[in-house]
Amino acid sequence: MKIINNPNKESWSDVLKRPTQTVGDIESIVNEIFKDVSINGDNAIKTYTERFDGIRLENNEVSVLEIENAIAKVPENLKNAIIKAKGNIEAFHTAQKTEKVAIETTKGVQCWQEKRPIQKVGLYIPGGTAPLFSTVLMLAVPAQIAGCKEIVLCSPPNKAGELAPEILFAAKLCGVTKIIKVGGIQAIAGLTFGTETIPQVYKIFGPGNQFVTVAKQLATKHGVAIDMPAGPSELLIVADETANASYIASDLLSQAEHGTDSQVILVATSKTLIDNVSEEVEKQLNVLPRKAIAEKSIANSKLIYVENYTIALELINEYGPEHFIICAENEDLYVDGISNAGSVFIGDYTPESAGDYASGTNHTLPTNGFSKAYSGVNLDSFLKSMTFQKISKEGLLNIGETIELMAEAEGLQAHKNAVSIRLKDLK
Amino acid sequence: MKIINNPNKESWSDVLKRPTQTVGDIESIVNEIFKDVSINGDNAIKTYTERFDGIRLENNEVSVLEIENAIAKVPENLKNAIIKAKGNIEAFHTAQKTEKVAIETTKGVQCWQEKRPIQKVGLYIPGGTAPLFSTVLMLAVPAQIAGCKEIVLCSPPNKAGELAPEILFAAKLCGVTKIIKVGGIQAIAGLTFGTETIPQVYKIFGPGNQFVTVAKQLATKHGVAIDMPAGPSELLIVADETANASYIASDLLSQAEHGTDSQVILVATSKTLIDNVSEEVEKQLNVLPRKAIAEKSIANSKLIYVENYTIALELINEYGPEHFIICAENEDLYVDGISNAGSVFIGDYTPESAGDYASGTNHTLPTNGFSKAYSGVNLDSFLKSMTFQKISKEGLLNIGETIELMAEAEGLQAHKNAVSIRLKDLK
Repeated sequence: MKIINNPNKESWSDVLKRPTQTVGDIESIVNEIFKDVSINGDNAIKTYTERFDGIRLENNEVSVLEIENAIAKVPENLKNAIIKAKGNIEAFHTAQKTEKVAIETTKGVQCWQEKRPIQKVGLYIPGGTAPLFSTVLMLAVPAQIAGCKEIVLCSPPNKAGELAPEILFAAKLCGVTKIIKVGGIQAIAGLTFGTETIPQVYKIFGPGNQFVTVAKQLATKHGVAIDMPAGPSELLIVADETANASYIASDLLSQAEHGTDSQVILVATSKTLIDNVSEEVEKQLNVLPRKAIAEKSIANSKLIYVENYTIALELINEYGPEHFIICAENEDLYVDGISNAGSVFIGDYTPESAGDYASGTNHTLPTNGFSKAYSGVNLDSFLKSMTFQKISKEGLLNIGETIELMAEAEGLQAHKNAVSIRLKDLK
Repeated sequence: MKIINNPNKESWSDVLKRPTQTVGDIESIVNEIFKDVSINGDNAIKTYTERFDGIRLENNEVSVLEIENAIAKVPENLKNAIIKAKGNIEAFHTAQKTEKVAIETTKGVQCWQEKRPIQKVGLYIPGGTAPLFSTVLMLAVPAQIAGCKEIVLCSPPNKAGELAPEILFAAKLCGVTKIIKVGGIQAIAGLTFGTETIPQVYKIFGPGNQFVTVAKQLATKHGVAIDMPAGPSELLIVADETANASYIASDLLSQAEHGTDSQVILVATSKTLIDNVSEEVEKQLNVLPRKAIAEKSIANSKLIYVENYTIALELINEYGPEHFIICAENEDLYVDGISNAGSVFIGDYTPESAGDYASGTNHTLPTNGFSKAYSGVNLDSFLKSMTFQKISKEGLLNIGETIELMAEAEGLQAHKNAVSIRLKDLK
């Protein structure tokens, strides 16, 4: 691990640099698959599933029977864990519901704002070595609370043409309306254009590899919204001399095992703590099954010593971490002072894993510094704000002249006319 | 105007088709300017301002003196109109403030969601024939309420190297922190990378021509968020036999004067009304100063007769208009049933112009069908949701096993460890 002492402000951008990703060479293949799927629909989907997932599927929609069989396969204790986690996620996201905002801005001018569900959403769940069923909870639970009518889940099949039973269990539990066995670029293309079996949706959510990320970017050019731009997962911990080095090491490693490009940073106001954490990481790393991955990202990780919490906070806000753990006596100062972070974990007994799975907060969060401008996925991600207004005769008499003056000054006479023609009848 | 009778559902996508925009050939010039500005900063900015705006500016920041001089030039009655409009916009957007959402999802597991301001925002205000000072109000007012620290406004200078006094007056009134005389692609590039005079921002707002639109898209690839993808402005009116044909014609024309690519649609359940509106449009069109523009977009506009409100509503939701005016006796049915629209105007005395200028709602709205997934600009556009959690010993004892089971099932042992190492100390 790299230990950095008291970096001066000029060096911060170097110290905090994230690994750059080159997506240029991916774009052409993504473009090609999008074009093919838009023209050939399910036929194209079948071809790519065969090519990339190694299985020819004549029917890629998951049947009721498949779901039932899958549910029978999930161990009871895991089912209960998923149900418990779902309960917390549901409670937290239900609490995010907002009332209609209505005011009379001027006598007779009623304005209000209401949130209405995005009617059709697509949820992408990556495949690969481990089934990421927790992401199903994080996306489908708020979609259901929001009232989205069509909730379409896409995930790549394994070589046997199946999805992991835990994914199907979670999808069924959370009200997903359609489950399609399709992954990668072709899944995003299918959700973007629609095919015979894949419904066209208005917004696509979910993580994925570089191909999926570029495909989601391209989807936005075709009028489909996405949850947020994605990047490798990252964790920044701030700690002082009162922090527990073993706990911190375990948190750093939990982030490091995600992938070799994961970002792991400790900012500490104690040099002793940095030494202790460094030692603990080595110890805990050795017994991990995903040691090979964690080792690589730990090698790139940084332990940064700074003199005081003011500098720490400034540096952290400059970075804008996805996950931010605070293990320090003056935790409130950090809580109050953090401007840029996806999700904040406070105190010795709040590991990032809690938010990844079961505390109730969402784990789909802005990485790559996007926390400076983006929210993590939340209930509002599945809703859109619409405004409404109703103006009475009295109301138009009250604001009509204001509108006329402004429209005229902007050179938009027809805008003015729309008011004048009404005022003439009223006066 | 094209009158369409009872279109069958298969033809809807044709009937509702928006004019396609080709941006392919713009992309290369945008890329080039972005690269130049990222390398050469203000020097590049100066060159492009000279090339595109016809003026060489050695200093492009608007001075306090310039603002004072401008304020003196704006007529008092227009000043008062702007102040009145600002009051309504402020009232409506202040009402959108939300409280912290906090719950204990499980005993000992405290989760909360707070919105914090995006620290640095850029507001783009187009130049051209008319000064769009109303957009300054629509963007700067919520930015100020949200608490954004840096609010940077960019707008192209005229040939004399000046901005319209109304823009400067509105900017000053709404707490803009810096005003830069720069427009077009180079303005967006400057806000994306930062230059010696233009601050780098986290999110860019505001309308613009095709060049600005493509530049904003490119900005997102460089990690800057944008308000929403843009497209030509559009209006859809639904009306029945009780509606006032002159009023409707005036609204259609107010939209049509925006540009030749503006979209104007009337959906009516009365054929008589359609005939009357068609006649009225011709009459009112002739006296408009922007007749040449309005005429072209009116030529492409559509008057669609449908049999009943159910069909009307389905068709309108399929289109997802930016502006939606309801002039019908059963207005509540439309209000309740509309899923996809940017902003809704209800009744005979609620012209779109009211929302464009002074009622209090925002006029920066999703066009091009984006209302299916996007909100218009509102207070939340200048904030991001952050989640926080604090778990007590008891809390971790309550949810620890759930996390362990789920992490293990996902094959993420280090995630499990982060909990186990703490539980061991607690048990």
